[in-house]
Amino acid sequence: MSKKLPILPRTNKNRLILYGKHPVFAAIANPKRQINKILTIADNADELKKACSKTKRSPSIVTIVDRKEIDKILPLDTVHQGVIAYSQELECYNIDEICQIADNIDNCHILILDQVTDPQNIGAIIRSCVAFNTLALVVQDKNSPTETGAMAKTSAGMIEHLPIVRVTNIVQAIKQLKKHGFWVIGMDGYAKNTIDNLKKGGKNAIIMGSEGKGMRRLVEESCDITVKLPLNTKVESLNVATAAAITLYEINKQ
Amino acid sequence: MSKKLPILPRTNKNRLILYGKHPVFAAIANPKRQINKILTIADNADELKKACSKTKRSPSIVTIVDRKEIDKILPLDTVHQGVIAYSQELECYNIDEICQIADNIDNCHILILDQVTDPQNIGAIIRSCVAFNTLALVVQDKNSPTETGAMAKTSAGMIEHLPIVRVTNIVQAIKQLKKHGFWVIGMDGYAKNTIDNLKKGGKNAIIMGSEGKGMRRLVEESCDITVKLPLNTKVESLNVATAAAITLYEINKQ
Repeated sequence: MSKKLPILPRTNKNRLILYGKHPVFAAIANPKRQINKILTIADNADELKKACSKTKRSPSIVTIVDRKEIDKILPLDTVHQGVIAYSQELECYNIDEICQIADNIDNCHILILDQVTDPQNIGAIIRSCVAFNTLALVVQDKNSPTETGAMAKTSAGMIEHLPIVRVTNIVQAIKQLKKHGFWVIGMDGYAKNTIDNLKKGGKNAIIMGSEGKGMRRLVEESCDITVKLPLNTKVESLNVATAAAITLYEINKQ
Repeated sequence: MSKKLPILPRTNKNRLILYGKHPVFAAIANPKRQINKILTIADNADELKKACSKTKRSPSIVTIVDRKEIDKILPLDTVHQGVIAYSQELECYNIDEICQIADNIDNCHILILDQVTDPQNIGAIIRSCVAFNTLALVVQDKNSPTETGAMAKTSAGMIEHLPIVRVTNIVQAIKQLKKHGFWVIGMDGYAKNTIDNLKKGGKNAIIMGSEGKGMRRLVEESCDITVKLPLNTKVESLNVATAAAITLYEINKQ
């Protein structure tokens, strides 16, 4: 019982614990992701070491432990599938970088989240962004959670593939996007137009607020147009991650 | 401490505990829902009693309790918003009834779930079904969970508005639907066609399998056509509730 546990201190360098097979394998495959140590049950070890070798990581970062050791590190009932990775957060992009990338593309879209705070919703939205070719996700630095293990898990590892931009002021970011030719579309349950009637193509920035509260007034006033999803009147709104998935699917039809 | 708790025994009559404001208010408004007792914190009581009176339920089914009493009844950390309702499950429909309703409609769609077992996913799917005018949800009796509080919660109360059909054999149900003019569309990540290219209109039955495993072989062989969502190749699949939401949104464009 006095055996030293292979638990690393949660310093800045190790503060993010990724868990689950999809997130950890996706992290290993991402050259931009710094991973300090991987703890795994024996079953996953060979495959993890092979994945490390493939991306020039030392297989020695993989340590085999008992499942119970992993249970102790994570909150109760976390579905970790016997593997965690002590990692560093990915570097965020800034809005200038995204605008520069967009300057070279005729048709693209980005997603802006205003006041969406639940890490699992954000993770699910990230998965949909990658599925539907979203160029970047923009969030407000102050109100938006930084990367978490739960976010990476609900993204099914897709967080490794999506540029995320943290801005101080969403209205300012919108102004800059407009200068670079983006058409700004706000999602609003009270809008007159539905999203399926939008003219397709070009550069679009979609803004989604939180479920219930929607966008803040100043953000809404920055939109070129507001649209809603065509919902049966019995349904007031959809969960924000569900609404985002449908919106991105539709906007991706260029 | 010896005060008798207002907890009802979980007999057949009281086995379903609905929790959260949306599910409980939606249940009260549904004349087909039998509710035996509502426990609530004082804040919600007046509104709940008013809702009961409106639908000819006795306001005396509403009992004010301390939030802690409700905490004790539900699993740890359940977000109940201070209200639960001891209820009976809604009666399911049979496939004949749905076919009869469909006989009188030119354009409609139903959703069939093959092996989707997570109550929260099913709840989220129910919400999308109501949002996009799905006529009924068909599930296999043996493998599909019956109504739960979590299912009603993730449906945001929309479970009150959707006919659910529990069948013994999905392949038999498909045969019957075909006789009534339904075109059977299976969702399959390996299909050649994408859903946005489908001919719209008429009577459609969509089949979705579980995430990862997909439909069972015999079910897939019953389909008139299989289609996929147009996903970036980095994304193997979407969560089944997300995929269902997009599919129903698309099929509802008639």
